[in-house]
Amino acid sequence: MADFNQFAVSDEENAEIKKLTLEVEADTDNFDAWEKLIHACEAQEGGLNRNSSPQALATLRDVYDRFLLKFPLLFGYWKKYADLEFNISGPESAEMIYERGCASVTNCVDLWASYCSFKMETTHTPQLVRELFERAATCVGLDFLAHPFWDKYIEYEERQEAQDKIFSILQRVIYIPMHQYARYFERFRQLAHSRPIQELVSAEDLARFRAEVESEAAAYGGMARPELEVERDIRAKIDSMYYEIFQRTQDETTKRWTYESEVKRPYFHVTELENSQVTNWRKYLDFEEGEGDFARITFLYERSVITCALYDEFWFRYARWMSAQPGKEEEVRHIYMRAATLFVPVSRPGIRLQFAYFEESCGRIGVAREIHEAVLMQLPDSVEAIVSWANLERRQSGIDAAIQVYKAQIDAPHVNIFTKAVLVTRWATLLWKVKGSVDEARTVFAKNVQWYADSRHFWETWLGFELEQPTNLELESQHAERIKHIFDELMAKSRISAAAKKELCLTYLGYLQDRGDKDAMKQFLTIDREIYGPSSLSVLDKPVFKENGAPRGLMDEATRLKAESRYPTYYEYYQEEPESSAQGTAPFQ
Amino acid sequence: MADFNQFAVSDEENAEIKKLTLEVEADTDNFDAWEKLIHACEAQEGGLNRNSSPQALATLRDVYDRFLLKFPLLFGYWKKYADLEFNISGPESAEMIYERGCASVTNCVDLWASYCSFKMETTHTPQLVRELFERAATCVGLDFLAHPFWDKYIEYEERQEAQDKIFSILQRVIYIPMHQYARYFERFRQLAHSRPIQELVSAEDLARFRAEVESEAAAYGGMARPELEVERDIRAKIDSMYYEIFQRTQDETTKRWTYESEVKRPYFHVTELENSQVTNWRKYLDFEEGEGDFARITFLYERSVITCALYDEFWFRYARWMSAQPGKEEEVRHIYMRAATLFVPVSRPGIRLQFAYFEESCGRIGVAREIHEAVLMQLPDSVEAIVSWANLERRQSGIDAAIQVYKAQIDAPHVNIFTKAVLVTRWATLLWKVKGSVDEARTVFAKNVQWYADSRHFWETWLGFELEQPTNLELESQHAERIKHIFDELMAKSRISAAAKKELCLTYLGYLQDRGDKDAMKQFLTIDREIYGPSSLSVLDKPVFKENGAPRGLMDEATRLKAESRYPTYYEYYQEEPESSAQGTAPFQ
Repeated sequence: MADFNQFAVSDEENAEIKKLTLEVEADTDNFDAWEKLIHACEAQEGGLNRNSSPQALATLRDVYDRFLLKFPLLFGYWKKYADLEFNISGPESAEMIYERGCASVTNCVDLWASYCSFKMETTHTPQLVRELFERAATCVGLDFLAHPFWDKYIEYEERQEAQDKIFSILQRVIYIPMHQYARYFERFRQLAHSRPIQELVSAEDLARFRAEVESEAAAYGGMARPELEVERDIRAKIDSMYYEIFQRTQDETTKRWTYESEVKRPYFHVTELENSQVTNWRKYLDFEEGEGDFARITFLYERSVITCALYDEFWFRYARWMSAQPGKEEEVRHIYMRAATLFVPVSRPGIRLQFAYFEESCGRIGVAREIHEAVLMQLPDSVEAIVSWANLERRQSGIDAAIQVYKAQIDAPHVNIFTKAVLVTRWATLLWKVKGSVDEARTVFAKNVQWYADSRHFWETWLGFELEQPTNLELESQHAERIKHIFDELMAKSRISAAAKKELCLTYLGYLQDRGDKDAMKQFLTIDREIYGPSSLSVLDKPVFKENGAPRGLMDEATRLKAESRYPTYYEYYQEEPESSAQGTAPFQ
Repeated sequence: MADFNQFAVSDEENAEIKKLTLEVEADTDNFDAWEKLIHACEAQEGGLNRNSSPQALATLRDVYDRFLLKFPLLFGYWKKYADLEFNISGPESAEMIYERGCASVTNCVDLWASYCSFKMETTHTPQLVRELFERAATCVGLDFLAHPFWDKYIEYEERQEAQDKIFSILQRVIYIPMHQYARYFERFRQLAHSRPIQELVSAEDLARFRAEVESEAAAYGGMARPELEVERDIRAKIDSMYYEIFQRTQDETTKRWTYESEVKRPYFHVTELENSQVTNWRKYLDFEEGEGDFARITFLYERSVITCALYDEFWFRYARWMSAQPGKEEEVRHIYMRAATLFVPVSRPGIRLQFAYFEESCGRIGVAREIHEAVLMQLPDSVEAIVSWANLERRQSGIDAAIQVYKAQIDAPHVNIFTKAVLVTRWATLLWKVKGSVDEARTVFAKNVQWYADSRHFWETWLGFELEQPTNLELESQHAERIKHIFDELMAKSRISAAAKKELCLTYLGYLQDRGDKDAMKQFLTIDREIYGPSSLSVLDKPVFKENGAPRGLMDEATRLKAESRYPTYYEYYQEEPESSAQGTAPFQ
C-alpha cells in the first residue's frame, strides 16, 4: 500500500510539474509560474533529501538550472540551490553552485558572505578559505554595506587566533567608505595599541616619526631618553596619522550617504523600479564620476547594472563611460556582451545594434554582422535592425551589398508585408541619395506601389522623394504633374484610413502653397473641400478597387495599425529624455 | 446741497466708469469688466430716464455701442439697449437699435419676436407691421423653436380680426418641422372647417377633387346630388390630404428631435461649449446635409455659427459646404467675411488666410493681399501669415516679389528675431526649391548664421538643406564635410538647450548611418558618447562665445522657448481631428 500510495503521489506531482513546466515554456517571463514550479519540485516526495529518487533530484536540478539561466541575478535562489545540493549530495556540489552563482552575480555581498561562511565550515585548509575571502574582497569589499562580509572574514581569523591577520584586514577596511566605518576604526585603534609598532606603519614612516620625535627631544636640551618614552611619542604620532585617515573615510562616507540611503532595492528583481530609484542611480553615478576614482566608479556601475539590469539606459551609459577611458576596449566589449546576451530583452534591440557599431568601429565586421543576424532571428520584422544591417554592408562593402540585404528580406516569406514596404522605400532612398540615381529610385517606387499601396509609410516616402526633387521654373510643371499623379494613385489604390490620407494630403496643400502656380489656389480649395470638408462632400470614403476592377475589402483594425504605423529608426531611441520628476514606476519599454 | 450732492455722486460715478473703461480697453475680451461697466452706466444719476443729463446718456450709448460691436451676438443686450432707448427718447431710436440688433443676430427668434411685438404696440399702419413679420418669418420662421414668433404673428392678425390671414399663416406653418407642430395643425384643422372651400386648396386641386367625387357618385347609379353633399365629400378628401402633410411634418420633426433635444445652449456666449455640444452640432449638420434641402441646411449652418461662433471649425465647414453649391460665390464670401471680421479671434489666423486663398482663386489678388496685411497688423510675428503672403506674391508675381515680402519683414524693427530666423530659412528654401539655385540658398544660410545662431529652426532647416542635397559616390566626401561643418558651428555658436542640440544631433547620427563611410562608426560612437553620454563626458554644456571671443550669457526661459519653438505652417491646423468622445469643454485654441 505504502508503495502504491507513494507512486500515486509522485504521479500527481509529475502531472503538476508537467503542467507548470508547460506554463513557463509558454511564457518564460512569467516569474510567478517559475516560482510555483520550483516550489513543486522541492516538495517532491514530501521534501527532497539524499534518499530521494534520482528522477526527483534530476527534475529539481533541471528546473533550477533553467530558472537561473533565465534569471541569473536572483542571488537568493543560488543560495537555496546551494543549500539543497549540500543536503542532497554534500559540499562539493554545493561549492559548484556557489561558484556558478558568484560568477553570475559577481558583486552580491550576501551571496559572497554565504559562500565564504559555507567554505569556512566545510574546509580545513586555511589557505583555501583565505583565498576565497580574498576573491570575495575584490568583488564586494568596496560595497557600502560590505560589513557582513568583512565581519565574516574577521570572525574566521579570530577562530584561527591570527591577530596579525585581523589587524591587517582592519588596516585595509578603515580606508573604505562604508555604513559601519566607525565600528571598524574603533576595533582597529584598540588592536593597534597591542600590536608591535613595526606592524602599524611602513618602515619609512616609522623612521620619519622616530626622527621627528628625537629632533623634538633634542630641542629641549638633548639627553638620551629611554626607548619606552620614545615609542610612546611615536605611537602618539601614528595615532594622529590614522585619525586623519578616519576623518577622510568619514567624509567620503557622508558624501555617499545621501545616495545610499535612497537605494530602496539594492538587488535585482523582475518588477519595475520606482522612477525616484532610477533617478537616484543616475545622480549617484554622476557623483562618483565626479570623484574620478576608476575602481569606485566601475564598482558603482556594476551595482547599477544589476539593480537596473532591465533598463538599457544604464548599459548604454556604462558602455559610453567605459569607452571614454583609455585602453578599455575589452571592458567595453564585456559590458555590451552582458547587456546583449544576459539582460536587456531583445525586444529593445538598441543596445545590441550599438554593440554591433562598436565591433564595426573595432574593425570586427563579421561580429557586427552576426549581431544583426542574431537580432533578426528573434525579431524578423525589426525594421531598424534590417536598415542598420544594410547600412553596415553599405559602409563596408558598398551599395550593392546593402541592396542585397534589402532584397533578401523583401523576398523572405516570414517578413511582414508592411515591413517590406518600408524596406522598399529604404532601397529606393539608397539609390537616390547614395547612388545619386533619381530615375532608378523612381522606378522602384512606381513598380512596387501595386504591392504596398496599403502602407502609409510607402506613400509618405514616395511623396517626400518627389517633393524633394530639385526644380526650377522650367521643370516645375512636370514636377507638379508627378506629384498630382501620386495623390491620384493614393486615393484610388490605398486602403489606409481617411485620417491617414488627410495627413498625407497636407503635404500636397503645402506643395500648392509653396510651389503651385497662378491657379494653384483653385486646386487648393477643391482639395480642402473634398478632403477636409463635411462627409457629404468627402471623396475619402470611396471604395478601393483591384487591378481587375473588383472592390477590395476593408482592413481589420490590427492590420490598419500596422499599415499606418511609423517606423522609428534606431537612433530615435535617443530622444527619451530621463524624466527625473516622474512619479510611479519606470517602464522598461 | 442737493445739487452739490448730485455732482459729488456723478463725480464718483465718472471715476468708477473711467476705471472700468480703462479695464475693458486693457483687455477687450474681459466680459465681466464689460458687464460691470454697462451696469455702472445704467445706474448713473440713480437710473437713467428721459430727464437724465446729456453726458450720462452719451456715456451710456457710447458704452453699449462699443460693447455690442465687440459682442454683436448677445441678443439680450440688444433688447435691453432698445428698451432703454425707448424710455429715453422714444420708439424711433428704439427701432434703430432693433434694426441693428437683428442685422447682427439675424436668426434669433427671441430678438425678432421682441422687435415684432414692439412694432405692433407702436405702429398703427398694419402694412408696416406685416412687412416686419414677413421679414422675421424669412429669418427665423424655420427655427425648431420658432413658436413664440408665429404665436405673436397670429396674435397680431387676431387683433386685426383677419381670419383669412391667420389661416394663410397656419397654412405655411404646418409644413415646418417644429417643437410645437401639433398645436398649429390642430388650430389649422378647426379653422379649416369654417373657411370657404376655395381657400383650402388651389383651384386645380379643387377641380380634381370635385371630379373624383362626382365620378365616384356616378359609379352608384348617377343621379345629380345636392351641392352640400358634394362639398362634404370634397372636404373629406381635403382633410385626408392635409392629414398626410401633418404626418410628413411629424416625421421630419421626430428626425430632428434627437439633435434639437441635445442643444443645451442655443444662443451665443463667450464661454466654451461642452465637447458633447460641439459633437451634436457636427452630427446635426451631417444629418441635415444628408436631407439635402438647401434652405434648411443653410438655416442650420447659420444657427451653428452663432452658437459655435468662436470655433473656426464651423466657419471652415460652412464655407466649404457653401462653396460646393453651384453659383454661391457671394454667399461664400459673406461667410468668410463674417468669420474674419466679426467672430473668430485674430489669434487664429487660419480662417482669414483661407479667405485670402478664396479671393485669390476668384482672381481678386488685391483683396487677398489686404487680408494678409490686416492679419499682420494684429499679429506681426505670425510666421504662417508672412509665409502665406510671400507665397501669394510668388504665385501671382513671381519669386522676386516673394523675396521682397521676406526681406521687408526681416528688416522690420517690430518683428521678433526668432520670427526673422524662420523667414530667412523660408527665403533660402525659396531660392533652393523654386529658383533651383542651391548656391544662393547656401549663401543665405552661411551669411545669416551669425544673427540667428540661437534659433533651433534655423539649424534644423540648414541641416535639412545640406542633407537633402543629392550626391553620388564622388560628391559624398565633400557633402560629409559640409554637414560636419554645420554641426561644429552649432556646438560653437548656438545657445539652444542641450536637449534641443541632442535632437538635432540625431540627424547627424542618422546621416553617419545612412551615408557615412567605412570609419563612420568611430565618429558615430564619439558623438554618441559626447552628446548622449553622462554629463562627465558631455560637450554640450560648454559656454558659447561671441565673435570677439567674449562668452555669451545664457538665455532666460521665455527666450529659450521662443528660440526652440516649432513653426506650424498654416495648413498644419488641419490636423486637429475632432475628438467626439472627449469630456469637458472644447477649447477655442
